[in-house]
This record gives sequence, C-alpha cells and structure tokens, in this order.
Amino acid sequence: MRKIVLDLATTLDGFIEGPNGEVDWCIMDDDMSFDEFLDSVDTIFYGRVSYDAWGNFHPDAGSNLTELALWKAVHSKRKIVFSSREREDANAEFITADLITNVKKIQSQEGKDIWLYGGAKLIETFIKNNLIDTYRISVHPLALGKGKALFGDLTKVLPLKLVGTKTFKSGVVQLIYERAAKE
Amino acid sequence: MRKIVLDLATTLDGFIEGPNGEVDWCIMDDDMSFDEFLDSVDTIFYGRVSYDAWGNFHPDAGSNLTELALWKAVHSKRKIVFSSREREDANAEFITADLITNVKKIQSQEGKDIWLYGGAKLIETFIKNNLIDTYRISVHPLALGKGKALFGDLTKVLPLKLVGTKTFKSGVVQLIYERAAKE
Repeated sequence: MRKIVLDLATTLDGFIEGPNGEVDWCIMDDDMSFDEFLDSVDTIFYGRVSYDAWGNFHPDAGSNLTELALWKAVHSKRKIVFSSREREDANAEFITADLITNVKKIQSQEGKDIWLYGGAKLIETFIKNNLIDTYRISVHPLALGKGKALFGDLTKVLPLKLVGTKTFKSGVVQLIYERAAKE
Repeated sequence: MRKIVLDLATTLDGFIEGPNGEVDWCIMDDDMSFDEFLDSVDTIFYGRVSYDAWGNFHPDAGSNLTELALWKAVHSKRKIVFSSREREDANAEFITADLITNVKKIQSQEGKDIWLYGGAKLIETFIKNNLIDTYRISVHPLALGKGKALFGDLTKVLPLKLVGTKTFKSGVVQLIYERAAKE
C-alpha cells in the first residue's frame, strides 16, 4: 500500500506561520532535494481552500528555473480535493463524502506515494483518523513565539516513531517520522 | 567568556508540558549522556519558583543509580537564584536586582559553562535580553496539540544558528543552536 506523506516546515517552537501568516522565514535550499520528494509521489491531496490557492498556481515566467521545474512537477500529479461541495474541475477530482473509505481506496491503488498538501483542517482530519503514514517535518532555525500551530489542537496525543533525520546547510533539520500507533 | 546554556525537552509541536503539566512523555535514555552535560557546567541559574521546587530536590534512596548520580552532580554546582526578594539560603546565592549586569559579571568569571535551568519566566527574560549562548533542544517523538509553549510569547523573532544534532535510540533528536543575532 502506498504511503500518505505529510511534509511541513515549522519553526523550532512549532509554528507553521507567524501570527499574520508570515512564512518569510521558510528556506528552500538547493541541497533540500524537494524534487526528489516530488518524484516519490504521483498524487496530491488538497483541502478545498488550499487547492483554490495553490492547486493551479503558476509562478511568474521570470522565476528561477528550480521554482519553475518544481511547479511543473506539481502540476503533473493527480490532484484530489476534499471539499464539502461537488465541483467539475478539469485538473482535479473532488471528493465530498466518505473521506476515510475514499482515502483507503486511493491508497490501495497502484502507484507512488501520496502527498498530503494541506491545509490545516484537512491535516487535522487525517491525523485524527490515523491516516498519515509519514511525517516529514523541516525544523527551521528560529523561534516565533506565536503563530499558527503545527498540528492544530489535537484531541489526543500523537505518538511518532523517528525513522530518519537530514541536516541542510541552511540549518534546517528535517525530522522524518512514521506513525507509532497502528489502528 | 563561559557560555549560558539552555537545555529543554520539547514535543515535536513545541510544548514543554501538557495542558495539565504532563511531562510523562519525557525520555531520559542512557545514551543521552546527561552526565556529560552536567560535567560541562559548574553553575546553575534558577528562577525562584524552580529553585524551591527542584533546587534542593533529593530522589528517593531507592531510585536508580543514574538518577542518584545526576542529582548528586546537580547539587555539587554553584546555584544562583533570580528572585524579587532577598533570602538567606545555605545552598544558593540570591540576586534581586540588575539581572543583566550580574549575569555578565558571573559569566566573565573563570569557570565552566552555566546551565540556565528555568522556569519559563526566567528563560523569557534571558531570551529577551539575548543572554543565552547555546540552546540544546531535545525534540521528543510525539505531538500534544496543546500545552505550555517552548519559549512562551516572544516579543520578537529569535533567529538561531544550528551547530549540531544528536539522535538517540529512543527517537529523541537533540538540536543544538547558538544565537544568530549578536548584540
């Protein structure tokens, strides 16, 4: 069964955004091999708001080649949007009910891993239903003291199993976990 | 000049305690070499509440030898308590005014490094005044979703410089930072 992978950038004190949505601290270094991660997935799960914001985003033509290549890779994936409402969309499939059943069905299909893109509400739903297989959390070298919390307000403790770490030249440390609790 | 070192255990999502003060998730593995850290310091800075709670704590005689040895080492250090009130105390020196001046004076004295023990309010004061040289943050493999925040509510962004990482068999990852901003 292919894995559902969450990939998030956080500050050392556990914020994914500043109090006004600031993400200017977020580093994308050339040694981070985000392209390798993208290459390991063929499907992306979005919440509806995140899909509308980023699902069909195209960087300016003048952007650097790495960024252009990354977005091109993103847009080559199968996109699935979890939403309360049906929508016809040329670039994505919408799922409006039976989230768990549909996720398990997609997960059991042949293919590469699945990137759980976000946003926060969708991630919370996936955590609560124990649907995330791999957590890739990139801890950035700063503290904000306030902002949007990494996992929101969990209803119970989330135990994790460390499976690897990577240190990047910028001082970002990626911590990779699997779920510790099996259903 | 000797260094002021903060050593804290946190969850992946940046909590040092659960909402009811829970620290039962905190792991002290035998590969963590806390004794080596203790050996690198000869002075401990406490806030008054932390000192009263832990400054003269003695574990039960039936505790394991490692714990007994750690506490013995703690109690061999010079202890300095930052408090709003003077107190005569056989085991500690009380500082009630001019925190920054006194800290710099102690720091300029000959000796090993200084452990900034806590609590939260004292740590906040040290962060705000840019007095911490080394941050040793042990990220534990779990998320709580709520609790007491790692650094409290900072007044400004705290930039850090990663200087090392250590991974322990329990899945704890220690991230070691120095201040990125010089005064």
